[in-house]
Amino acid sequence: MGEVGAAAQSADSAGTPLPVAVDAMGGDSAPESIVAGAKRAVEQFGIPVLLVGRPDEMGDVGDIPVLPASEVIAMDAEPANSVRRMKDSSVVRAAEAVRDGAASSLLSAGNTGAAMAASLLRMGRIKGVSRPAIAVPFPVLGSTPTTLLDCGANADCQPEWLVQFAQLGSIYARTRFGIETPRVGVMTIGEEAGKGNQLVKDTCVLMEEGSWINNCGATYVGNLEGRDLMTGVADVIVCDGFTGNIILKSLEGGIGVALDAVRDVLDSVDVPEVAEHVRPKLEPVFDELDVDTRGAAMLLGTRGVSMIAHGSSSPAAIANAIRTAHEMAEVGIVGNIRAMVEAGR
Amino acid sequence: MGEVGAAAQSADSAGTPLPVAVDAMGGDSAPESIVAGAKRAVEQFGIPVLLVGRPDEMGDVGDIPVLPASEVIAMDAEPANSVRRMKDSSVVRAAEAVRDGAASSLLSAGNTGAAMAASLLRMGRIKGVSRPAIAVPFPVLGSTPTTLLDCGANADCQPEWLVQFAQLGSIYARTRFGIETPRVGVMTIGEEAGKGNQLVKDTCVLMEEGSWINNCGATYVGNLEGRDLMTGVADVIVCDGFTGNIILKSLEGGIGVALDAVRDVLDSVDVPEVAEHVRPKLEPVFDELDVDTRGAAMLLGTRGVSMIAHGSSSPAAIANAIRTAHEMAEVGIVGNIRAMVEAGR
Repeated sequence: MGEVGAAAQSADSAGTPLPVAVDAMGGDSAPESIVAGAKRAVEQFGIPVLLVGRPDEMGDVGDIPVLPASEVIAMDAEPANSVRRMKDSSVVRAAEAVRDGAASSLLSAGNTGAAMAASLLRMGRIKGVSRPAIAVPFPVLGSTPTTLLDCGANADCQPEWLVQFAQLGSIYARTRFGIETPRVGVMTIGEEAGKGNQLVKDTCVLMEEGSWINNCGATYVGNLEGRDLMTGVADVIVCDGFTGNIILKSLEGGIGVALDAVRDVLDSVDVPEVAEHVRPKLEPVFDELDVDTRGAAMLLGTRGVSMIAHGSSSPAAIANAIRTAHEMAEVGIVGNIRAMVEAGR
Repeated sequence: MGEVGAAAQSADSAGTPLPVAVDAMGGDSAPESIVAGAKRAVEQFGIPVLLVGRPDEMGDVGDIPVLPASEVIAMDAEPANSVRRMKDSSVVRAAEAVRDGAASSLLSAGNTGAAMAASLLRMGRIKGVSRPAIAVPFPVLGSTPTTLLDCGANADCQPEWLVQFAQLGSIYARTRFGIETPRVGVMTIGEEAGKGNQLVKDTCVLMEEGSWINNCGATYVGNLEGRDLMTGVADVIVCDGFTGNIILKSLEGGIGVALDAVRDVLDSVDVPEVAEHVRPKLEPVFDELDVDTRGAAMLLGTRGVSMIAHGSSSPAAIANAIRTAHEMAEVGIVGNIRAMVEAGR
């Protein structure tokens, strides 16, 4: 398989934009909410979509083209084996559509591990990328998000991988959020150099050496702590996938509990002024703080754009994720990563 | 040093309750807020306190006895070396007061590492405890908290240590929150057995084997994820100290950002009904969700009660932590841990 393949195209040979291949069957309320999100992306954003899955279960999809796939990998199925075995599953067919140049990118809100495995196995890894990583943007109120990676692709990591995550994250922050010189830090448990577990200590030695910066145009800001994640002190923070996934889930859960408690209080206050003056101002804040719906994770390092949305994504969140997938393919993030890796050889 | 020493006494030979040794010099606004918290504990809760530090900097301490200590370990000083070098520092003298039977327990809001090192070096470790761990209760709205440990004492861990953390956490949950049969889980990144990094996989094999339960009367609930931390599905969750500290800091930060944003919105709404009807209902929720002020961490496994409060603790938070330290000494948590460890031999 050659390095410059069909994957990572955003338009066909005639210049017509390729559609986003959407796994219609993946998600807590799939296919309904996925199809609804796809329609929204087409109608509101004018983005072409290819729905992949069981046509007879999708309901009315309007003019959206459908790529039939007979199997569905369940949310709790074992990812790698399922992808190998279920060759006609929606997420596998969607990844193949990207590989074959029939789609610009993949979006799945289904089994995260399966979306990852399908992307890795069908699109393949960019040559020179040791381990693809999941990047998740965390909201920073009133500013560009801070991207944390790896958020779950690699439970046990080598220091060298974390250094490459720093590079991948820098390309992502620049390509997606327009941050010219991303500030990159290492997630650990103390601000002073040399604080952390053995992996972080070894990683920091490599990070401080600094040659990794040349390929990706970042600034190294050193050790960061959990509290620095949503305050905008860095644009990219790297950690192993075990730590990153636990941070992601803890914050989704904790912020969710806190904001639900606030909502409950507002619901219990039977005063029209509250509904009139407080809710309209709070809703945008709730929205901005929602890691799930705004964030859609991206697998960085595969030979095609692979976006992973939360299983509970609303149609609006799916539409946003489709738009992001489309944009990432259009601006050529895969090519940017490839160029970065090649510059480092 | 014998195993049954002076440490972990709650009263003197005449039956008079021993005071809580409070590091007056540790904390972001020490000694002012610490002394204010100590006064509150004495006046409101009737708990005896021994203030440790520089008498001339404490201001008016009323009738509270003072144990002079001339040195102060800075918040950002290197912990272990500072404790070894600064023998007349407030936190070292406070730990010695516990060791020598002059105090029932230690409370410091200063340098966490120094409080830990002083407790380890001066009080000593309970025989049979491999590694003391920091336990932090996370709020569960309307229920007893979920205790996470280790929250930072041991950055790199062995599987056997995590199993012992499960035992220490069970004793803590029962002693502090009255939970007769604590539900204990392992923090990881997937609900299915066998999910996680190598440490967790190895730990789960030992946890499932189950003999650890006999000594501590717990129930094993298996793998848990970050989102399970504040929903009450477990009473105790174990992880390595690197992961635990990052979870703690991430949630403190993330929930802080979310609730500050809600406060800002309320501040910006100039309607009397909001101040009248919403704030009085929201303040208790904010309060309940505050990991910092309600939680005060406890170092489990030392031969005396050692409580560690957040550096930014208010006088009310310090008073609460003093009360908890006093209660933990009074109910004999150190003896309970010792009995548990001995039963496992």
